Amino acid sequence: MTGARPQVRPYGELTSLIGMAQARYAREIDDGDCTAWPDFFVDDCFYKITTADNYAQNLEAGLMWMDSKDMLRDRILSLLEANVYERHSYRHLLGQPYIREIEGDEVESETSFMVARITREGPTDLFATGRYIDRYRFLGDDPKLVTRIVVLDSNQIDTLLGFPL
Amino acid sequence: MTGARPQVRPYGELTSLIGMAQARYAREIDDGDCTAWPDFFVDDCFYKITTADNYAQNLEAGLMWMDSKDMLRDRILSLLEANVYERHSYRHLLGQPYIREIEGDEVESETSFMVARITREGPTDLFATGRYIDRYRFLGDDPKLVTRIVVLDSNQIDTLLGFPL
Amino acid sequence: MTGARPQVRPYGELTSLIGMAQARYAREIDDGDCTAWPDFFVDDCFYKITTADNYAQNLEAGLMWMDSKDMLRDRILSLLEANVYERHSYRHLLGQPYIREIEGDEVESETSFMVARITREGPTDLFATGRYIDRYRFLGDDPKLVTRIVVLDSNQIDTLLGFPL
Repeated sequence: MTGARPQVRPYGELTSLIGMAQARYAREIDDGDCTAWPDFFVDDCFYKITTADNYAQNLEAGLMWMDSKDMLRDRILSLLEANVYERHSYRHLLGQPYIREIEGDEVESETSFMVARITREGPTDLFATGRYIDRYRFLGDDPKLVTRIVVLDSNQIDTLLGFPL
Repeated sequence: MTGARPQVRPYGELTSLIGMAQARYAREIDDGDCTAWPDFFVDDCFYKITTADNYAQNLEAGLMWMDSKDMLRDRILSLLEANVYERHSYRHLLGQPYIREIEGDEVESETSFMVARITREGPTDLFATGRYIDRYRFLGDDPKLVTRIVVLDSNQIDTLLGFPL
Repeated sequence: MTGARPQVRPYGELTSLIGMAQARYAREIDDGDCTAWPDFFVDDCFYKITTADNYAQNLEAGLMWMDSKDMLRDRILSLLEANVYERHSYRHLLGQPYIREIEGDEVESETSFMVARITREGPTDLFATGRYIDRYRFLGDDPKLVTRIVVLDSNQIDTLLGFPL
């Protein structure tokens, strides 16, 4: 059923394909240099980081807001330039995606995550938790993010504005 | 092979179906209002929270013990009534289910979990770890919990008695 | 496609089989007695624990280094003898494996992990994070580890040398 439209694929197959895309995504931002981060999105994507409280109250304001792949690319380039010496590293762990809806060739899913922050010579702590609310567009077997809303559980988030989640 | 009995399904397919049910379960208790929590269980279910030490010693005593879906429902309703203002939220992250045994239309599985507790304006900490020892009944493609024994790794657990795990 | 060579299997199927093997592995070291730990490896295996900094700099030195299943077995037996009374327990949570390469009947994958350490009557903390860089050999549907390099994110790791990761 390779390349078939999402509607005719079993949920298990869609879950598996989204899970694989997310594993690649997490690897790029944890163990790669983040330069391929924008490539997980479509050109006219929407990316936002917000808090659970803001999301529940439908507040538009986000902590970070970008509405094209070019903006993501600019962001990552300026981050890489600025943080010549990176003192922290991060480790994302994701739950299994939950498929909320299928519409045309797009699939909405939610995925829980935990992020640990590692200070090279210091402690490792649980840095952030939350969920991704995603809309994936299926181009064959390679789903791309049309929308990613990163909903953080905590309201204490000022320090994480610097890097992709 | 949709709807087939568990014995004739590959382990990978059962693992995937259980994983999907668990993703929905975790979403309901982390991001929903918990009212649909009992619906993940069969009517004559058994739900128990215990510790690894008690479980290893085969001690009957549990921290929480319920033996019907109606009891789960009562529990959740009284929790929702009591905690009008909820100051904490939780984030569950689950490992992949390990299938222990298949018997008739029931499947026994074990799944590791970590739970983070988020205090809205305060810190996020690793609240509990452990494993689910589950017996799922397969009604078509929608496995329901016949038994869930939540085995907590730590003996320090008094504060978590209030909510479903 | 049971038992087919990795090259002709879809990535989703390989990911699922590796995920299942890793769930069994984690269960053995978290909830079992570790005696079956060596059985997840081929006879002529290579197992190493190192840090992200050492790995990035291609430093050969590891924190632990074993190059046969027999060495793993010796290690586990001496650990079990020494730690008659175990005060800690551990909980591994793994991400979905990311498949890097398929070569003959071997598959290279990377998997993120978090490990919590539980002191029975004390606190639970995030003990280690990192990734497995694995090479699995597929013998039918049961992949065995040819190589496991455990790359820890932090450089603070002295206390964990005692047990398998």
